[in-house]
Amino acid sequence: MRFAHLHLVALLFLCPAAGWSGLPENARGSGENAGHWQPDPMHEYWDPGTYHQPETGPMAGRFQGEECLECHTVVTPGIVRDWRESRHAKSAPPVLCPACHGEDHQKLRLPTPRTCGECHPRRVAQMEEEKKYGFPGHALAMERAVDSKHFADKPKAEVASCLQCHSVATKCDSCHTRHRFDPAEARRPEACLTCHSGPPHPDDEAYFASPHGQRYLQEGSTWDWSRPLRKGHYPTPTCAYCHMKDGNHQVADKAVWKFGIREINPRTAENTIKRKRWLSTCADCHPPEVARLFFRELDTERRQAWGKLYGVEGLLKALRGEALLRPSARERPPYPMDLMARLFPRERIGFYEGQASAFYNVGAIERDYFEMWYFDNLGAFKGMAHGAKEMSRRFHERLDAEARAIAAKARHLREGKGAGTAEVDLAPIWMDGEYTRFNRDNN
Amino acid sequence: MRFAHLHLVALLFLCPAAGWSGLPENARGSGENAGHWQPDPMHEYWDPGTYHQPETGPMAGRFQGEECLECHTVVTPGIVRDWRESRHAKSAPPVLCPACHGEDHQKLRLPTPRTCGECHPRRVAQMEEEKKYGFPGHALAMERAVDSKHFADKPKAEVASCLQCHSVATKCDSCHTRHRFDPAEARRPEACLTCHSGPPHPDDEAYFASPHGQRYLQEGSTWDWSRPLRKGHYPTPTCAYCHMKDGNHQVADKAVWKFGIREINPRTAENTIKRKRWLSTCADCHPPEVARLFFRELDTERRQAWGKLYGVEGLLKALRGEALLRPSARERPPYPMDLMARLFPRERIGFYEGQASAFYNVGAIERDYFEMWYFDNLGAFKGMAHGAKEMSRRFHERLDAEARAIAAKARHLREGKGAGTAEVDLAPIWMDGEYTRFNRDNN
Amino acid sequence: MRFAHLHLVALLFLCPAAGWSGLPENARGSGENAGHWQPDPMHEYWDPGTYHQPETGPMAGRFQGEECLECHTVVTPGIVRDWRESRHAKSAPPVLCPACHGEDHQKLRLPTPRTCGECHPRRVAQMEEEKKYGFPGHALAMERAVDSKHFADKPKAEVASCLQCHSVATKCDSCHTRHRFDPAEARRPEACLTCHSGPPHPDDEAYFASPHGQRYLQEGSTWDWSRPLRKGHYPTPTCAYCHMKDGNHQVADKAVWKFGIREINPRTAENTIKRKRWLSTCADCHPPEVARLFFRELDTERRQAWGKLYGVEGLLKALRGEALLRPSARERPPYPMDLMARLFPRERIGFYEGQASAFYNVGAIERDYFEMWYFDNLGAFKGMAHGAKEMSRRFHERLDAEARAIAAKARHLREGKGAGTAEVDLAPIWMDGEYTRFNRDNN
Repeated sequence: MRFAHLHLVALLFLCPAAGWSGLPENARGSGENAGHWQPDPMHEYWDPGTYHQPETGPMAGRFQGEECLECHTVVTPGIVRDWRESRHAKSAPPVLCPACHGEDHQKLRLPTPRTCGECHPRRVAQMEEEKKYGFPGHALAMERAVDSKHFADKPKAEVASCLQCHSVATKCDSCHTRHRFDPAEARRPEACLTCHSGPPHPDDEAYFASPHGQRYLQEGSTWDWSRPLRKGHYPTPTCAYCHMKDGNHQVADKAVWKFGIREINPRTAENTIKRKRWLSTCADCHPPEVARLFFRELDTERRQAWGKLYGVEGLLKALRGEALLRPSARERPPYPMDLMARLFPRERIGFYEGQASAFYNVGAIERDYFEMWYFDNLGAFKGMAHGAKEMSRRFHERLDAEARAIAAKARHLREGKGAGTAEVDLAPIWMDGEYTRFNRDNN
Repeated sequence: MRFAHLHLVALLFLCPAAGWSGLPENARGSGENAGHWQPDPMHEYWDPGTYHQPETGPMAGRFQGEECLECHTVVTPGIVRDWRESRHAKSAPPVLCPACHGEDHQKLRLPTPRTCGECHPRRVAQMEEEKKYGFPGHALAMERAVDSKHFADKPKAEVASCLQCHSVATKCDSCHTRHRFDPAEARRPEACLTCHSGPPHPDDEAYFASPHGQRYLQEGSTWDWSRPLRKGHYPTPTCAYCHMKDGNHQVADKAVWKFGIREINPRTAENTIKRKRWLSTCADCHPPEVARLFFRELDTERRQAWGKLYGVEGLLKALRGEALLRPSARERPPYPMDLMARLFPRERIGFYEGQASAFYNVGAIERDYFEMWYFDNLGAFKGMAHGAKEMSRRFHERLDAEARAIAAKARHLREGKGAGTAEVDLAPIWMDGEYTRFNRDNN
Repeated sequence: MRFAHLHLVALLFLCPAAGWSGLPENARGSGENAGHWQPDPMHEYWDPGTYHQPETGPMAGRFQGEECLECHTVVTPGIVRDWRESRHAKSAPPVLCPACHGEDHQKLRLPTPRTCGECHPRRVAQMEEEKKYGFPGHALAMERAVDSKHFADKPKAEVASCLQCHSVATKCDSCHTRHRFDPAEARRPEACLTCHSGPPHPDDEAYFASPHGQRYLQEGSTWDWSRPLRKGHYPTPTCAYCHMKDGNHQVADKAVWKFGIREINPRTAENTIKRKRWLSTCADCHPPEVARLFFRELDTERRQAWGKLYGVEGLLKALRGEALLRPSARERPPYPMDLMARLFPRERIGFYEGQASAFYNVGAIERDYFEMWYFDNLGAFKGMAHGAKEMSRRFHERLDAEARAIAAKARHLREGKGAGTAEVDLAPIWMDGEYTRFNRDNN
């Protein structure tokens, strides 16, 4: 019996391409703009619930877990070893391969949060509950990606980059290392940092620039990570300790500052409650008055950052009034699927008038403002919020420099010197450029 | 008795704000410009010797250490656990909470170096001794921060970022993890890197880009950090191994190159002695001739860097002579407290004529030079000094690029094209801008 | 006997400079341009086979290994301890100091790959075999450095930075930590990352931005690194696991994409074989179809990147045709040793026409293209190839921004506005500038 399997394994390597069926030619996108885009083959793996196609290779038959292991100990020993070290392997009875993947080797599944929720309903429910707090958040990450217009219109090769992280909403092994699924690993900062690093969310950089992060680097390798994320269990907080206290998979119920992407009123009833939740977390180690001061400093930093952003936003709106923003709404190509915008072009500036409008397809001065808001402002917030004040200060210097550069460009434009200069030119990418052409050829 | 305490704890959470007295409304700044600034509430914690106000919450009474622990094991179990693992807890008799904080819960102290010096006089004396070498250094870090004019005039929200690190002079737990205070932690690079990273002091980046740092990453988690920083105890050096050999808390007695911020003559008697101290440290592992070559290369790198800086400084001075530097000294607003500068404005360029003058409140071309000196030059130095030569090369490329850009701007200015262009404009921030306005409103 | 040695040690410290002979005044360069450059003193250590000069200090005599250890346990205890923990120390008979360094203390050698090859012929042969795949690669790293014209003409202080990494070809302890030489260390990513980080080869950044790298950070400190790099031994791959499978010291036999520096045809017979080698490595853990998709995405990313690069290259060639590229080939100073180029100047753009031409000594617009190709393009490749897609996306944004900026500069040039502007000016460094002057004075 065992040899028969090994024979099939050999076959698998001889016809390596045969096993893969892939997405059908006419696979449709999902979400609001479903008709306007086609999934990339890799979408199968980032959103398996929607797109996964079972492989139909030479291996056929229904297998119980022990049979799976017999072959895969040879074929993919690493993941088998990971599984053997997992709680899945050690429970009685063990949770074997078919529990998540099915028994029929011609119809294997990739597990989705729903699959995991069969045994872990509370954690999946917590994550789902997050939706009531809106975006940004984990639970809506995939929806928001595929529903945004620039997703439908961008080269698939590029949006695939987004999905690797946005798949946090559609598969649990974005955070939980398969096939070990050890909470001890999910509790470590690294579980979060594959996604939470770099602009516009330098949480990685902020954490490790803070005393908390440095202490983790000093001691983390000696901590007992099997302990739940509870008061007194860890000498210094990690991402999950503060944001997923007690393993709560709902990370939005303390999200006072909304990731820094928009201004919030810290005094609303909701934010007062959220802030109390934060203060109670901080009080695990710090005197409450220190935490309170700290948040007050964060409020000040935010007020200061938004002061800078609004100043520039006002300037851009004035330029628009003077018809100096080019390309103007009429000149800009609307998103291909965007019929209404074609008929009634509308100029949008900044976050409140519509984020995506400032993302691509705008003149250099608007793109600058976008980067000021999305990269520098968020860096300033992330630094301050994580106790890396010097990092925050650095990003404020960048905000200042950007504001000055934009003011100088505005002066140029008003003096009529702007046309054709490097500072002002930026070909709208949806009309003619890499994006549109690549899109036309490849999507 | 125990229940009484827990009752009070509950009370503490019910009236969370009551416990904090905070800085009085009329608290004064300290240092040279004391009359010109007010401390931010957080100053209490960065410079507790000067500013800490005891909290006057509902908890009243005098407590001996065992009583403190009774409550705080519940209220803040993490710091209690840290203390229990400390030498303070294990000595006979143990050093209990009141030794550092006092007994009266209405008059609790935050410890200062003076507090620590009662038991650790040698270490505190070593740090104090550092003052004779001048700035930069740890012991003078707070004085230099609050005595500089731009400190007094900048938004408090921003200078608070500076104090988090500059508090190294005013509290020992900037480096020593409270409440464990384990030398094993202070010896690790991470103890230094919360502050020593990013521009203008990328020691973090330099160390980890060097073979020393990479070897620490490979093996550090297996080293016995309880061993003193002595020859033969560690396979590769860390920050403290070289800069605080044998635990010496005086880090300036080998500071030949002065952090890279000014040119030094490597052949003075003082620097010859300091260099010998370095060579003897390197000789713990390397043949002396390799270390000597290495320092010769560092001298060459420094000469090269200063050649680049002086070239640009000369150009700026020539522009000043031609009255092309705008704003000029007369046009620039002096620091608000700077009466003499108001009467007798003086144009300063570069480090030797006064660092702060080039920091803020200058035209773009001078700010460029400032960044060239403070960010690129220091990056070039830090890389070379720590054996990360490729990093140093990279910063030299930046110095070259900056020098070329400044030369092009100078040509612009001379051709009369400069006025109003993006390259040249930079609103002086002390006259009108974020700083002055924020300051006026918030300080 | 022992005391006699200690006496000599004391002597060694009393006359520290006497021991070093150093390179002779008239030492010649090596390689194609040997006559045009002189080695820097540090070259002794980066290419010991060519340049090492034995020290002729006060220590004289021939020593057997045990005698060496007697002194050096005191003089350099760290490296002795490292050796004691090495397999060299534990084998029977032990491999003692003279095996690598010789016995005569006045004629000590630094070991070269040849020295190591006496006992480890297979590993050294594997590395040598790499040469048949051409550059880039480890085995040719030093040749390519010293044979390139800009090497011969650059300040030695700068090329020394290159040699620290390029010495991978001329000494084994670039990767293997001396004197422990533990394969367990060479297997760790850090062994590679001293060199493979930063532009133009951000492998460090790419690996740690990927799920592979984050998992290493989570678990790496608990892995048994003494296990060979074989299927099933490691839960997640490291640099060496994929690139040096089974310890193979030939890293070029899977190099389909050639480091990203030039466009490759993924469908050649050679690349099909190389790709199969990759797929088989990925299949240690992943279903082959996922790896295949992944490589298809990488091909797409490469096609996209080269589309961007060729677009700009075409633009530059058009500008050259219009005589708008300044300095032109005739205006540019040729490399000092480059007689033919002096007689027949030839304008080269981009990689295929000759890389070095675009590196230095060109106008700003060509330098921009160089940076686009060498920094942004390579960053985009490294990110994608290592599973850090978001990093790749970020570098594609930079490619787009650079392409737009270059297009704007081209428009400037065509409108006659370019001359003398900051964007276009760049003093050719071989004619007049830091390089030539520093070179003249110091080389």
